[in-house]
Amino acid sequence: MASNFKFTPNKKFLNTPKDVWSFTNETAAVASTNANNKGRELINLGQGFFSYAPPEFAIEAAKKALDPASNNQYAPTKGKPQLIQALIKQYSKYYGENALDAENIQVCTGANEAILSCLIGLINEGDEVIVFEPFFDQYISNIQIPGGVVKYVPINPPKNLKTEITTGDDWTIDYEQLENTITEKTKVLILNTPNNPIGKVFNKEELTKIGDLCVKHNIVIISDEVYEHLYFNKKLGFPRIATLSPEFAQLTLSVGSAGKSFAATGWRIGWIVSKNKELLSFASMAHTRVCFSSPAPLQVACAESIELALHNDYYEDMRQQYIKKFDILCSAFEYLGLPYTKPDGTYFVLADFSKLKIPFDTYPFPQEVKSKAKDFQIAYWLINEFGIVAIPPTEFYIPEHEQAAETLLRFAVCKTDEYLEKAVDRLKLLKDYIE
Amino acid sequence: MASNFKFTPNKKFLNTPKDVWSFTNETAAVASTNANNKGRELINLGQGFFSYAPPEFAIEAAKKALDPASNNQYAPTKGKPQLIQALIKQYSKYYGENALDAENIQVCTGANEAILSCLIGLINEGDEVIVFEPFFDQYISNIQIPGGVVKYVPINPPKNLKTEITTGDDWTIDYEQLENTITEKTKVLILNTPNNPIGKVFNKEELTKIGDLCVKHNIVIISDEVYEHLYFNKKLGFPRIATLSPEFAQLTLSVGSAGKSFAATGWRIGWIVSKNKELLSFASMAHTRVCFSSPAPLQVACAESIELALHNDYYEDMRQQYIKKFDILCSAFEYLGLPYTKPDGTYFVLADFSKLKIPFDTYPFPQEVKSKAKDFQIAYWLINEFGIVAIPPTEFYIPEHEQAAETLLRFAVCKTDEYLEKAVDRLKLLKDYIE
Repeated sequence: MASNFKFTPNKKFLNTPKDVWSFTNETAAVASTNANNKGRELINLGQGFFSYAPPEFAIEAAKKALDPASNNQYAPTKGKPQLIQALIKQYSKYYGENALDAENIQVCTGANEAILSCLIGLINEGDEVIVFEPFFDQYISNIQIPGGVVKYVPINPPKNLKTEITTGDDWTIDYEQLENTITEKTKVLILNTPNNPIGKVFNKEELTKIGDLCVKHNIVIISDEVYEHLYFNKKLGFPRIATLSPEFAQLTLSVGSAGKSFAATGWRIGWIVSKNKELLSFASMAHTRVCFSSPAPLQVACAESIELALHNDYYEDMRQQYIKKFDILCSAFEYLGLPYTKPDGTYFVLADFSKLKIPFDTYPFPQEVKSKAKDFQIAYWLINEFGIVAIPPTEFYIPEHEQAAETLLRFAVCKTDEYLEKAVDRLKLLKDYIE
Repeated sequence: MASNFKFTPNKKFLNTPKDVWSFTNETAAVASTNANNKGRELINLGQGFFSYAPPEFAIEAAKKALDPASNNQYAPTKGKPQLIQALIKQYSKYYGENALDAENIQVCTGANEAILSCLIGLINEGDEVIVFEPFFDQYISNIQIPGGVVKYVPINPPKNLKTEITTGDDWTIDYEQLENTITEKTKVLILNTPNNPIGKVFNKEELTKIGDLCVKHNIVIISDEVYEHLYFNKKLGFPRIATLSPEFAQLTLSVGSAGKSFAATGWRIGWIVSKNKELLSFASMAHTRVCFSSPAPLQVACAESIELALHNDYYEDMRQQYIKKFDILCSAFEYLGLPYTKPDGTYFVLADFSKLKIPFDTYPFPQEVKSKAKDFQIAYWLINEFGIVAIPPTEFYIPEHEQAAETLLRFAVCKTDEYLEKAVDRLKLLKDYIE
């Protein structure tokens, strides 16, 4: 029986191209059974999906948290009191003793929902939001859902990107261009440090320039700091914009994530910290309407995990483990002579594939792949020929600017050392294709 | 140091009055220490917060789910495959064998986020959404976030509401009024059955009239069925609008919740089921942007709990337990001679307090309470004088229509029998105030 029912969706979701995560997963699923990959497992360094479990203390905390009846019921919309207290302790290290109380914290259902709630709390139809390119793709829809308009400012790649090993500091912002992008409608700037996918940690000088412009033009900063514990350059450390001056603190909403810090991306616990309680209160109102409250037993588990992490060397141990993971993976790029961006933070590394002799003209790329930037073709070829999954980073650019990243691929190292060793062995097979 | 920073929030959140949950919790917190309540515990029958734990099998399933590393990482945005399979099995009982596959299901982070994602997926600025009064308060902001406009249609109370025990069937819709509310901009109608706070289960005839109007005018139905397993009238059962005709199925998105079915409101697992895959796909796109994915270990725990519930008499046992709970609580209303709405579904009961001699003119109500409808004064008086917390239902009406409910209070029975017995003892003290 044919139905005459017709509907039109939210126009923001019409003509949305397939996102890079679906593209990569679907390509990998098909490629896993082709002749090249028969009898060998795919090496998946695409999505930031940990190949290992959260630390044992976090799992134990979660199991214990399930026992009291009340931990299985609605948490307060602001968050479980014990998690708020743990976060106050954690952030007092950076904001100062007694600088924070419960009204400076909002627990959310993952950092993504935290950022969305900040934006829904603040944005009216037509307000402009500045994001730096490359950007995490979810920002764009999160800005558009409440009717915001995205304005893009590139983080310019170093000139020697394709020839030498570079660092995050070599990627730079043109502050004149940034100021020229600001209009009367500019309401928010989204900052992401440590930056996905570049691995750049913004230094104090850079943050001060950005903060000064935001103070001058009355712009809220949403600082996405989900990789806050993953920084590897001792000299640079991890500067937080909200702690650099009282004025910056007033206009900043900082976002953190338990998923990234405790290898528990499936727990969906994130949070917002702000010195400005009134500013935060609007994110809180939005959060209450978006998710009402966040998973209660997992909040309790995160509270206990953070308390433990503050009293042992968990975060520092984790950094040391990641330094080793990057060393393992990057040894493959060294072996192949492929330039890469040495990460000062995050668990991602960008490698440049310009030197590879890939048969772009003759390879049977599907039309969907041909119509995208070159890095999608490199990613497709790499999955199909070598069973290696990586993310094409032009997804994090608007089409006009994607040329900056079209020879790069992003690799995630949140995998066991053994898995990364296997990845290195597989990557070394590319030697035959190096010019 | 004074900052010159100024910001304007999303205007939708400006001048929002305090929500009823905050009002009730804050009033209760203050009242718990007053002279009347000294030495006795508050009896909280306000929010639908279970006073007991999820069933042991669900807790065990959750603990077990934490063991595999992958259950702690991002679930697929559509949901964990095992939960999708369990939901297909559950809903095949109503939709028919082989009527559903994985593309008919979207797992969400609680039913609230499910409804929000349906609305974000469909609503463009200015589209109209019809809700019935009384409404669950979250609907309103969920409609407004993507720019929708709310249109209200009352469920008219029975004439003998204040004099006799009534049932959900006595609350009726004026279908002419419903059709007159429909305009060219009407995009969605939100239905809630079993209905919070009335306890009404819409019968087949009512659903058919609503469905026919939606087919005629091309309107999507979001059917909030979170209390789907809590129906108590054997003859009425629980009819589902999506299963009444193929045309209704095409335009309906049905929303369910693990929190309500497994006494686990803090787990934040809900879902959308629809026969119309294309319609559902836009809710899925919105969900991916709102929350990305839902709590993975708790999804696995829900999958196992649903599988178990389908093979033992869990849902039927639960219904029998609730029938007993309602009998316990309502014995107090019978004793006092207070009329109430006998619930055909949900875990709420509305009781009418017209007969109580409350000193409205002389009682020291705070200004905030005086400025609201009479039921807020009754609730305030009841908390302060008797330590009994209930919800004033005019919160679920627009001011023009709140008179329909201004002598009612909503009581939740999702409490242990012992707690409800204590509630009855406390409520009986009201006898002195009955005219």
